[in-house]
Amino acid sequence: MSETLLFERIALIGIGLIGSSIAHGARAKGLAREVVGTARSEETRKVALEHGVVDAVYESAAEAATGADLVILCVPVGAMGNVAKEIAGSLKPGTIVTDVGSVKAKVVEVVAPQMPEGVHFVAGHPIAGTEQSGPLAGFAELFEGRWCILTPTDETDVAATEKLKSFWEALGSDVEVMDPAHHDLVLAITSHVPHLIAYNIVGTAADLEEVTRSEVVKYSAGGFRDFTRIAASDPTMWRDVFLNNKDAVLEMLGRFVEDLTALQRAIRWDDGDALFNLFTRTREIRRGIVEAGQETAEADFGRHHGAKDETQD
Amino acid sequence: MSETLLFERIALIGIGLIGSSIAHGARAKGLAREVVGTARSEETRKVALEHGVVDAVYESAAEAATGADLVILCVPVGAMGNVAKEIAGSLKPGTIVTDVGSVKAKVVEVVAPQMPEGVHFVAGHPIAGTEQSGPLAGFAELFEGRWCILTPTDETDVAATEKLKSFWEALGSDVEVMDPAHHDLVLAITSHVPHLIAYNIVGTAADLEEVTRSEVVKYSAGGFRDFTRIAASDPTMWRDVFLNNKDAVLEMLGRFVEDLTALQRAIRWDDGDALFNLFTRTREIRRGIVEAGQETAEADFGRHHGAKDETQD
Repeated sequence: MSETLLFERIALIGIGLIGSSIAHGARAKGLAREVVGTARSEETRKVALEHGVVDAVYESAAEAATGADLVILCVPVGAMGNVAKEIAGSLKPGTIVTDVGSVKAKVVEVVAPQMPEGVHFVAGHPIAGTEQSGPLAGFAELFEGRWCILTPTDETDVAATEKLKSFWEALGSDVEVMDPAHHDLVLAITSHVPHLIAYNIVGTAADLEEVTRSEVVKYSAGGFRDFTRIAASDPTMWRDVFLNNKDAVLEMLGRFVEDLTALQRAIRWDDGDALFNLFTRTREIRRGIVEAGQETAEADFGRHHGAKDETQD
Repeated sequence: MSETLLFERIALIGIGLIGSSIAHGARAKGLAREVVGTARSEETRKVALEHGVVDAVYESAAEAATGADLVILCVPVGAMGNVAKEIAGSLKPGTIVTDVGSVKAKVVEVVAPQMPEGVHFVAGHPIAGTEQSGPLAGFAELFEGRWCILTPTDETDVAATEKLKSFWEALGSDVEVMDPAHHDLVLAITSHVPHLIAYNIVGTAADLEEVTRSEVVKYSAGGFRDFTRIAASDPTMWRDVFLNNKDAVLEMLGRFVEDLTALQRAIRWDDGDALFNLFTRTREIRRGIVEAGQETAEADFGRHHGAKDETQD
């Protein structure tokens, strides 16, 4: 087959946005002879099979994992421990098991001890996604140009980490290796707290008495609508992120609130210079992100302008 | 000329993102015989003229306003009072003066009393924009399908309000009439507080010791990068917004922080249900915004996926 063939059988435990994107990417690039999967919901299994997302679906994670040489856990962080337990007996020696969870220390803690002798667990996290969920939300290009963080520990097989690195690179990602605890701190500020405050402001806006829901919707183009995108992300996944990365999230949230209190005080006391200085500094960061290829340089995320374009979407 | 001709001479005081977008739109639709402008910076005047954004530029606001039958103040909210004073002596009876500031009560307070007899001031605010600034950032379609709020008071000439409404409708906007104080409350939650927390989290991330700037940039696709877009908005404009809509911003910010504290507590005490319930509720609001045509339904704002697309932008 293809010269980039890396695995015989990839088993996806969970076929949501990330699982289905891996399936599309791996099949498009010819990285495996077969890509199979399982999902807890019968509907997801049916849809994934009917739309050709995977070559086969199985009712249980144990069946899906049987005979696989790469197993990828694509379930919410809170479900990782149970899934690991479920598949442990079906894993053959030499198999690489990885995950795509947004929290790493906790996942390493609950998954690694359950892996049988000769099975290599390498925790991972592709920093990619959209606000959409489910087996039809995925697409092969999701990981292109995005970073994927692997968090092997001292016990992790070096060759397994290298092979998994090649896999993510073949999907178009740049791969970084990092300590699980450091990953959790970095992601707390670049992902978890941003999601929390987006969810929070959308909730605050929904609960106002003085401003109607319809006004919030109508005038959302003033900035609010940007927040609603990430506040439309999968609720189960995000609940689990916060419960399983508690310390780092509370630490970063504490800093956020401290800084916000200083801004609040600057507004109250008419300290225009403090506001202006911050608002100038923050422009640089975006420039850096655009220059690093992690964001489009187009105005307004490249959103289409003009009423017709948007309502037709 | 065109049958949609509404004004003889439109004078733009300020030719940034909004001013230049009005110029492009008004000229594309044939709404005025000529569109002239002024800007404080010589560079802006030069660029606006060279790129044909306006038909003529003037060194002073007073000169630009002379002979105009529509004058649009497109300067930061903090500059509105001085600009109104500067043009007052040059305005001919019957002229409509309006503005595009993001705060309305304060603008009405400082501009309206300076208008000479027979000149009609109707405060306004188009809810449209991008994170880009300057005379080359504008485009004719910016206002299409977006709302424009007019905030006339009891003293405002009804015919002037109607004519201005026609103008914004001709630019593609839907127009709503509202009390200035209510406008300020609505925008505090749909625009001002979202900007403040976006600026704030970008500042918090920039100041961390445990996480490097380069890590923040690399892993920004986890959610953080969305916030950097609005935190790249014009610093002067936004400083003025917060200083001039202090009460409403502090009120909405207080509610935001109160709700955030409850979330913080839910995380600390493992209250997964509280998190899940909020995260489910917030999805509805986005659906409403997409259905109302105020947001694209495409995943990830319709950002291009795939490394090549993004770095080529």
